[in-house]
Order: sequence, then C-alpha cells, then structure tokens
Amino acid sequence: MLLKVKSLGLMAGRPVAILHAETARKLNVHIDERVNITSKRGEIISVVDTAKGMLDKNSIVLSGEIIDYLQIRNNENVEVSVAGETRSAHYIREKIKGIELNKEKIKAIISDIVSNKLTEAEIAYFVAAEYINRMSMKEIEYLVESIVSTGRTLGIKNRIIADKHSIGGISGNRTTPLVVPICSAAGLMMPKTSSRAITSAAGTADSVEAIAKVEFSVDEIRNIVKKVNACMVWGGALGLAPADDKIIQVERLLNLDPEAQLLASIISKKVSAGSTHVVIDIPCGKSAKFTREEGKALGEKFSQIGRKFGLKIKTIITEGDEPIGNGIGPLLEMRDIISVLRQEEKRPLDLERKSLMLSAEILELTGTARKGRGYELAEKLLRSKVAWTKFKEIIKAQKGNADKKLNLAEYYWDVKSPRDGRIIEINNKSINAVARISGCPADKAAGIYLYKHCNENVIKNEKILTIYSESPQKLESAKKLFNKIQPVTIK
Amino acid sequence: MLLKVKSLGLMAGRPVAILHAETARKLNVHIDERVNITSKRGEIISVVDTAKGMLDKNSIVLSGEIIDYLQIRNNENVEVSVAGETRSAHYIREKIKGIELNKEKIKAIISDIVSNKLTEAEIAYFVAAEYINRMSMKEIEYLVESIVSTGRTLGIKNRIIADKHSIGGISGNRTTPLVVPICSAAGLMMPKTSSRAITSAAGTADSVEAIAKVEFSVDEIRNIVKKVNACMVWGGALGLAPADDKIIQVERLLNLDPEAQLLASIISKKVSAGSTHVVIDIPCGKSAKFTREEGKALGEKFSQIGRKFGLKIKTIITEGDEPIGNGIGPLLEMRDIISVLRQEEKRPLDLERKSLMLSAEILELTGTARKGRGYELAEKLLRSKVAWTKFKEIIKAQKGNADKKLNLAEYYWDVKSPRDGRIIEINNKSINAVARISGCPADKAAGIYLYKHCNENVIKNEKILTIYSESPQKLESAKKLFNKIQPVTIK
Repeated sequence: MLLKVKSLGLMAGRPVAILHAETARKLNVHIDERVNITSKRGEIISVVDTAKGMLDKNSIVLSGEIIDYLQIRNNENVEVSVAGETRSAHYIREKIKGIELNKEKIKAIISDIVSNKLTEAEIAYFVAAEYINRMSMKEIEYLVESIVSTGRTLGIKNRIIADKHSIGGISGNRTTPLVVPICSAAGLMMPKTSSRAITSAAGTADSVEAIAKVEFSVDEIRNIVKKVNACMVWGGALGLAPADDKIIQVERLLNLDPEAQLLASIISKKVSAGSTHVVIDIPCGKSAKFTREEGKALGEKFSQIGRKFGLKIKTIITEGDEPIGNGIGPLLEMRDIISVLRQEEKRPLDLERKSLMLSAEILELTGTARKGRGYELAEKLLRSKVAWTKFKEIIKAQKGNADKKLNLAEYYWDVKSPRDGRIIEINNKSINAVARISGCPADKAAGIYLYKHCNENVIKNEKILTIYSESPQKLESAKKLFNKIQPVTIK
Repeated sequence: MLLKVKSLGLMAGRPVAILHAETARKLNVHIDERVNITSKRGEIISVVDTAKGMLDKNSIVLSGEIIDYLQIRNNENVEVSVAGETRSAHYIREKIKGIELNKEKIKAIISDIVSNKLTEAEIAYFVAAEYINRMSMKEIEYLVESIVSTGRTLGIKNRIIADKHSIGGISGNRTTPLVVPICSAAGLMMPKTSSRAITSAAGTADSVEAIAKVEFSVDEIRNIVKKVNACMVWGGALGLAPADDKIIQVERLLNLDPEAQLLASIISKKVSAGSTHVVIDIPCGKSAKFTREEGKALGEKFSQIGRKFGLKIKTIITEGDEPIGNGIGPLLEMRDIISVLRQEEKRPLDLERKSLMLSAEILELTGTARKGRGYELAEKLLRSKVAWTKFKEIIKAQKGNADKKLNLAEYYWDVKSPRDGRIIEINNKSINAVARISGCPADKAAGIYLYKHCNENVIKNEKILTIYSESPQKLESAKKLFNKIQPVTIK
C-alpha cells in the first residue's frame, strides 16, 4: 500500500510507524506488529502504532529513526506492507531450551537484530539465554562472523594495525590516551575507536572529548589516520557492529554482560577495524568484574577466538582492586593523562606504570621492540616527550587543542579521614556511583579526585578525596550517596 | 511539570507519552525513559517519545492506553515528572544469576509489571530466568500471592464455588461448555472465566462467542451468576490477574510457557475468582505439551500450591495424543457441543465421554455426588437434557441464543485418503496451524472438521477431514500448508 509520509519530528528510540487505525485494519496489521517500509533508498522494518486524530487514511507518520535511515522527505510516498514471519524467534527459543545453535541460526538472529525484525524483548530473551545457558566456542565464533558481516569496516589496511582494549569497571583506568601516542610515536599504526561511558563515570571517548572532537565519519577517520597514523575516536555511530550496539542497549537494562557477548563484542570490533595485533587488559580483583582465575580463563578464550580471525591477541591480567590514577570523570582523567605526558612531578605514577606496561606489550607483540625491551622503548618515548608531541598531533588532527586550560568544577566537597589509619579498600563500583551522581559523564568537569590509594596511611582530618560537581544540587546528592555507601574503608 | 493533554487517538500497545523535544530536555528525561503521569483520577508510568511537529512545548500527547486508564479528557492538564529508579530490575538480574528470590522481591517485580515500571524487555528477562533457572515452590507461592494482590476479584462468595481448567494445546478440547451446564444443573455454582485463543484455533471464549456475548464487566458477571448460578465468559479484560496478562504477552513472543508461570497463572486466576474446588485437566501425549510423567509431576505441584491458598484441587491426566471432538474452530466446536447437549445421533462421543468424566470428578470433589457415583449423575443430567436446558439458560443470560443456526463457511476443501490404511497420528500442533491459516479464531466459521480419529481404518478416497474458510485465499493457504506439513499419518 502506498502511503504519504508525514514527518512530525517524532523520536521513539526505535523505528515506529503510526498508521491510521482504518488503514491498519485494511492492511490486516495490529498494534505492535511489524511492517516493511520501502522507499527509493531502501527498506526498513518498523513497529506499528495506530492513531485516528493526527493523520488521514492515506498518510503515515514515521519516527525520525526511519526518516534518517531512508532519507525520506516530508510528503514523499513509501510502500508499506506486512512484514513476514521471522524464523529467528524460533532459534532464540531453541537457545533458551539449551540447544546449541549452528551458523545459519546465529546468522539469522544477528541479521534480524540489525534489520529490526526482532523486538527488544526478543533480544532480551537471547541475552538471557547467552548468559544462563552460555555459548560454545563455536557459537561465539559464529556470533563474531555474523556481527562483522552485518557491519561496516574502517577500510584501513596495513601490514600491522595495533589495538588495545581494557575491560571496563575500573574507575580512572584511562590508559588509551597514553598508550596510543606512545605506540604511534614508535611508528605503529593505531586507529583506536572507543566507547562512551555506559555505567561508569567516563569512557575514553568522553575524556578525549574534553579537549577534541571524537565524532567523525569513517572517511574522516581514514584521513586522520593517514595524516598522523593514529586516532582516538568514538566508535559508537560508525556502524562497525550494529548488532552489538543494539544488544548492548538491551544488556544495559539489567546491567548484564554475558561472557559470550563480551568476547564477540570486542573481537568483532577489532576485526571490523582491521586490527592485526591486539593487547587486552583484563583487570581482576575485589571490586572488578573478574577474579584472577576467571580473568585467566577469559584471556584464553580471547586468544582462541582471535586466532580464528587471524588476530594476534595478548591478554594481560592487571590489578583491579582499586581505581587507577587520581582523577575520575572525563576532565579529571584528561588532566591526569596530560600531567603524565608532560611528565609533571605530581603525575599519577600508577597510571603511568600501567600505560607503559601495556605499551610495552604492544611494542613486543608487533615486533617493534625485541622481547623484554618494550618497556624501555615506551619509557624513552614518554620521558623524552616524543609521546606528548605525538599526542598533540593527534588531538590537533581531531580539531582539538591539547594545551586547552581544563578548569575544575565550581562546586566541591572534601572528604577527610575521620581518624589515623590505613586505607584498605576503595570500591570501584561505589566510587563510580558517586561520580555519576555528581554529574559524570554528561557534566565533563564533574567527578572525584583521589589524594590517596590503597595501603597508604592517613592521619585524622587529612584529605582523602574531593568530589567535584557543576551544580550544588548534584554535589549534595553525591555527598549523601557517599555518606550512605562509604566507598573508602579505613582501618 | 503541568502539561495539557492532546489526545490524537494514538494506540501504541503500551502507555506512551510524546513530549516536545524541548520539554523533554527541560525535564531531563530521554527517549525510552519513564515518566509519571498524574491526573485527578490516578497515576500511571509511561514510556517517553519526543516530537517537534505535532505539539507545542506546553502539551503532551498520550496514547489511548493512558487516556483510558486515567479517564483523561482532551485539553485536561496532567502533572508529568521523571519516574524514579526501580529496584525490581535488580531483582530480575539476581534471578538470572540463579539466586532464589524472597517474597518482597517477587512482590516488587510483580507490582512494577502492573504499574508499567518494567519494560517488555525486562519482563522477558524475568520469563527467561523463570524458564531456565526454574522457580522453587516458595517462589511460585509468592508469585501467586503477588499476582492476586495486584488484581481484582470477582467478589462472588459461596461455600462451594466449582471450577475447571484444561491445559491448552489439544485441538477441539472444548469441554467447558459441557462441564459447566452439567455441573450447574446438579446445583453447583460455577462462574467460569476462560481465555481466547492465543496460539490455538479457538479458546472457550471464542467458541461461546459464536452464539452469545462473552465480554462483561465484573458487576454484570455477578448478576448473571446470581440469576443462573453459572457463566462462561471471557476473563481477559476483567483485571483478575493483570500482571499475568502482561507476562503472557511477553511469553507469546517466543511461545514460551515456564512451568512456574503456568502454575501461578492458573492458580492466581482461580483464587481471584473465589473458587474453592478445582479440577485440572492435563492432556499428555505425543503432540501435547507434556509427557505422562511430566503431567503427573505438574499435577502434584498444582495440588501443593493450591493447598497453600485453601483450594481443593484434583488433577486428571487425560489422553492428549490427538484432537478431541470433530470440529476445530470456534463455530465448528460449538456445533459439536450443541450436538452433544441435544444428544444427536452423530455427536462426537470422545468429547462427550471426556466431559462426563471431568464433570464426574467435579461432582465428587465437591461432595455433590458420592465417590464413584459422579459419572452416573453427570450422564443422567446430560441424557435427560437437563444440561441442555441449563445451557440455554446460561446462554440466554449472556444475551445469546443457543438455537441460533450455525452456518458452515462458504469455502471448503475435502481431504481424502490416498489409500487403504489406518490412521496412526493426527498431530495437534499441525492441525492447529492449518486451522489458524484457514482463518481461526477471527473468522468464526473457519476451521477443520474431522471424520476420522486415530486407530480408525480408512479406504482409498474416503473423506478424512474438511477444511473450511471464509475466503478462497485463506483456503488456498491452508491447503498449501496442509500438503506441506501433513498433519495426518496413515499407515
């Protein structure tokens, strides 16, 4: 049926088409069922709402998600037809029942997620089945293949393309903006795409955004990498792994992270980015996602899946007992990074050491440094400020300014030690929660600055940390939460 | 924030509020997040969409689901505020991780489902966890309690209120319209609420609707029962178990039916209806939902949970290897029922026998007949046509006419035996699928009429069944599907 599009600027978070109730009846389609919308520029599947008062029988209201995807103009005609049944719901049911899925079935599920044939609820069933019934290595391999084949690639080719990934959950663990300039200063090509914060105080993309642009098109990214051999951009809107992007949206509802999806998500993005050598940082410890044993088992799976796709992967188990660095929050973390690159006296040495170690692993994995000599090379590039120069180059290519003054937030509250003692725990999850309430990641200057780390002594009334906020209300909420959940334990 | 309601006749299948993009920004609420909508008549939680072109900054478009619930008039003002965080998502996450939930947690989940605080995807996570991780008897008990306490009751009180339930999946298993008149003719009060077809060709409500009204308010139902001591109505819109109604919507997506939810769903509806004595028919067999062993284990659970709520439950394992009766489809099944009540010569004797047996169990369970004498009493009421008189009374009270002429559908196709042989299987699922394609349950006269049952001999070219349809296109599709999946096996 040919219907005239009315664009009312509707945004629904998913493709939604509003049909006149009469028209829906004629098409024999019901609320919450699915229709194909076809324009000159392609096809998309949409959920159906109906209405009587906002359109006539020959019109259709399309949500912005559809208008953008099909580049539809107001009053343009589109063809609307009932979407056929999908087999993939049946395959998800099989997985819920504990049946192992073959390649064709996983491919059907992933491509139906991308083309919007499956609802969020159906995707939730899939995630739950992945989580509870787990997936075999074969299934994870098919997942990666399907996610890659339904996405775009960066289209950058080189004999060696280096990459790194840190598993999330550790506050302040902002090593990427140090590792990328160090390694690319050593001559490595490193087109790094990162995420924004999902449940943490800041993602790498949020931090870099404090001083430069991070949203670019694939073409623009290729140009940046051509110019400076590296980049530090947001990967979210590039469409490298659109199935994974949708699955992550559904995972967020319960903050679930099935191992199979974690593996597939990371490996597929590396494959789509064209990476050849990847170092993966798996922080383990008390308030981290994994214990050391779990981390080691996960590391082996990374290597095994990576091999199937021609990736050289080295996984490193790192300390995840407490936050890394002093700053937590986009701007506070960027201040830490710049102080390390500038080799200022009061720079956070734990962040520096970890970044040097990860850089060393990349330099050795790619053969840029001989076995056992990576750290030395990384340290030389950092101390000589060659890495700082490289960083400024990259930031400039991303239309930013590394020398920009980074002002702290106006409102703050100092947390002081109630007594003499020793700090025995700084809980990552609780620190993250307080930083988010203070305004992170949307308020770039909000967050927490730590003066102390675990195993350090404090005396009564000594400052342990400061909470920064851009509004007095948010500061008040952060104070309240801090006092309630007590992220720092002193003995 | 006070906003003026614009009702544009939007129906979205769930409560949706469209805010002007600017207003959403001011409220600090994003697409797909939730707001409280408060009017003079109550409060509801709604999902947020945003728009620019269909409303101004001081207006809000509410979907019909909200308008109806809060009885809002056009241009009325409502208070809109951001909905707080819910703990229940966290509890669902615990269940996914395999943790047993206590009473408070299950209560929180169920009441958040009813008040729309949880999305369909979050409910899907809960259903998946119920299915894969199963639930303890304690958890199921809490489920029943929570579902009942968040719903309405029929408000009918009597020393004995009899009820029955047949687990679905068996084509033509339409015993309720026979059991209800037989038992109420014996003096029992039997206010029976039934469902419409979800995945089958017809539900009891669909069949009864072929000759009477089935949609009544709770008050109207009470009046019917006062008058004739029984009813056969649709339970779907009465709000007896609104949490279960929403969960069933999500289960349908994958056609999943976790045992815990099946138990809780049936028991909670019986409790809300005020039932005291319940017979549950569990068909077991080849193409039924359960094997005999599974059926027996399920039956014990029914009795155990029922006891907690003061219900006397008797479960009966019945034959589920093939369809019951001859007609499959709302009108064809009603013809079977009436031919049994009228004691016509060509009535389906398997349906008669099963209905007499279930009636006997109810008569004995309630003490209306002595142990071992229930069948005799039921048979007497049927043969003497006292049950037929009672049936006509009930149908009349439901504004119907039991003597209405029930015309078969105009288009039909006879399936004949390709050779001499014996029928060894009639698959319930396949027969259902063909009946649905032929137009069931929306087209009341569509469906299948069986001339033969399992273990009967056929000769070449003898009619096995006829497919009826109200349109030649649907008949064609049904023919195609029949030939593809071959629901009848002859050896």
